[in-house]
Amino acid sequence: MPAVLAGEEWQDCIILIFGAPRTAVFAHLDSIGFTVRYGRQLVRIGGPVLETGTRLVGHDSQGAIECTLVIDEETGQPTYEFTRDIDRGTELTFQCDFRETETTVQSCYLDNRLGVWNALRLCETLENGIVVFSCWEEHGGGAVAYLAKYIYETYGVRQALISDITWVTEGVHAGQGVAISLRDSLIPRRSYVERIRRIAEAAGIPHQLEVEGSGGSDAKELQHGAQPWDWCFVGAPEDNVHSPDEIVDKRDIESMLALYQELMRQL
Amino acid sequence: MPAVLAGEEWQDCIILIFGAPRTAVFAHLDSIGFTVRYGRQLVRIGGPVLETGTRLVGHDSQGAIECTLVIDEETGQPTYEFTRDIDRGTELTFQCDFRETETTVQSCYLDNRLGVWNALRLCETLENGIVVFSCWEEHGGGAVAYLAKYIYETYGVRQALISDITWVTEGVHAGQGVAISLRDSLIPRRSYVERIRRIAEAAGIPHQLEVEGSGGSDAKELQHGAQPWDWCFVGAPEDNVHSPDEIVDKRDIESMLALYQELMRQL
Amino acid sequence: MPAVLAGEEWQDCIILIFGAPRTAVFAHLDSIGFTVRYGRQLVRIGGPVLETGTRLVGHDSQGAIECTLVIDEETGQPTYEFTRDIDRGTELTFQCDFRETETTVQSCYLDNRLGVWNALRLCETLENGIVVFSCWEEHGGGAVAYLAKYIYETYGVRQALISDITWVTEGVHAGQGVAISLRDSLIPRRSYVERIRRIAEAAGIPHQLEVEGSGGSDAKELQHGAQPWDWCFVGAPEDNVHSPDEIVDKRDIESMLALYQELMRQL
Repeated sequence: MPAVLAGEEWQDCIILIFGAPRTAVFAHLDSIGFTVRYGRQLVRIGGPVLETGTRLVGHDSQGAIECTLVIDEETGQPTYEFTRDIDRGTELTFQCDFRETETTVQSCYLDNRLGVWNALRLCETLENGIVVFSCWEEHGGGAVAYLAKYIYETYGVRQALISDITWVTEGVHAGQGVAISLRDSLIPRRSYVERIRRIAEAAGIPHQLEVEGSGGSDAKELQHGAQPWDWCFVGAPEDNVHSPDEIVDKRDIESMLALYQELMRQL
Repeated sequence: MPAVLAGEEWQDCIILIFGAPRTAVFAHLDSIGFTVRYGRQLVRIGGPVLETGTRLVGHDSQGAIECTLVIDEETGQPTYEFTRDIDRGTELTFQCDFRETETTVQSCYLDNRLGVWNALRLCETLENGIVVFSCWEEHGGGAVAYLAKYIYETYGVRQALISDITWVTEGVHAGQGVAISLRDSLIPRRSYVERIRRIAEAAGIPHQLEVEGSGGSDAKELQHGAQPWDWCFVGAPEDNVHSPDEIVDKRDIESMLALYQELMRQL
Repeated sequence: MPAVLAGEEWQDCIILIFGAPRTAVFAHLDSIGFTVRYGRQLVRIGGPVLETGTRLVGHDSQGAIECTLVIDEETGQPTYEFTRDIDRGTELTFQCDFRETETTVQSCYLDNRLGVWNALRLCETLENGIVVFSCWEEHGGGAVAYLAKYIYETYGVRQALISDITWVTEGVHAGQGVAISLRDSLIPRRSYVERIRRIAEAAGIPHQLEVEGSGGSDAKELQHGAQPWDWCFVGAPEDNVHSPDEIVDKRDIESMLALYQELMRQL
């Protein structure tokens, strides 16, 4: 059984400590969406795809909400259509339409429900390591800085894996294995990433190497925090990013979990 | 009498500690303006409104300066007109033209002279709490990170109120009460903001709920620092933001102070 | 002999501690360049000048690489020409063509080989002070936050000099002395910068005052970190910034070193 750190001092985050940890896994709990502003205006939380007709759900003082996203044709700004006004400050998220086939799962928020799922499945067999469930990743960060400081100062751990979902691109394809990111907008320390590549190769786990010039993750706060963290983003790729129709190949989920199990043993 | 923390280790900031604090109020001391570059060029400090004819004041090795802001019509860049060259690196600020009516105050730098005034008036009756006067808020921050670290580590305080001035918009009107910001470019933790809303409602203090997608405050450093701060921006709205003609309704100043007094008792 | 801090806990950074330090010098070790993406695409590391025909070098699993930078005319994106495909994730840097005359040195990466050279020469006579060799400066930072925290907490040092190279501009000219930067995108604390100006003037060391509205350095992490650092960028100006042809006047290198020696004695 892991030690569980949760409660007010951790805001809405949770930390699980297993055995004698050497590496920490970060999986963010938060989602993209919208905040209701004035009139029928919406303000974005993170970077949701803006498409008229998308179904949004929420809850305010008058009860449950199921409304429709409408993009203003002149301004390009998001608004909503509903039978009544919604309370100022209400948060709206995509309505979930979960679809599963033999080879894929499809839904909103696979980023980062799948990263969380991967971390939870990892816990089933984890002997030594830390698993962190974080907040605010989709909107500029705000929790990993203090989580990372506590973990480093308490356990001396400064190796991290980012359990999150990345993008299908011209170089990273669905079904060809979990992506090991060599860089995104930030550049992790090469010696650490190369250790991870060697472990993946030696274990014969299907994987792909990703190289991007943009995008970020919980690793931003590790990179910029006041501890010498080594970090690497390791996650399955999805298509239809940040839409209600995010889709992931099940083989990539399998290789993601297999690689995390191996990395947590060897790193 | 509060304990007073000031001196070189605090750069140009001041911290006041009253009784057994649970909450800290942050009010920034710095102002927007310009730095003299080469020739007649000016470089912005923060985000001042650029309008030809604005009167600027400063001081250099040759004495006092009263000059005129001129926006270059071709480049849109700020320059100055004066009887002589001004020393490189000299700082210029808006010339103050303070105007008061029965219902309003008007001047440059109500942002954040009023936030500072509110914090000082709060001190007159404050029994338990911390009041912080910070620097660099208008230009990307640089002091709140270490102030927040010290306060959290020394007093265990991690609740914050940002005593600053916000914008009159289509949803926040002059004279209708202090604004409680539900979000700006950053999103504070909902459970904390809702406590503040409930206290304001129960106390019957006039207030408005603000929802913005841009803008920031000293809270940026709290959000991104390595302590689990809960924060909320609570401040009167002004019109003519970042110009020499910032104007605030006196009723909003009154409700701002009343709400701070109540919040510091109850939070 | 200084104490030397290096090893895994410092990632690829090095700290040298001389005597009883009051001031720390930061010189970054990293360079701009490119990462190989998919196909023939390159992704930038930092902000290299993009000019077709530039020679790039690197190393991958198939051996040494000398290839040519080509800017795609339609997209403006960097690509490479080479006799074979280069491994995904390979790092490429400018090929060095070092040129020296009686009055100048010219090469890629004078930013920051010269800042490092200045710091090393300073060590030859330094009695009290800290010299830090940092990483990631060209790509958003990531090391100075923890270096600065350690130095402040261990030695109480919170005065910094940034040993780096700046730009020849309409106000800062080659050959007229080291530049003392009064500001770039960030604004250092005025009282500290003025002490530095007074020491330079009293010592009669040729220098120029720089005022910029953009640009940054290792000081960004000092400014935003959770310690009250005073900092100032002090460095020779170069022309052809971030190209293979960076050029610096030897007189400015001489005055840079002379000023560092004086500042480390007096600050």
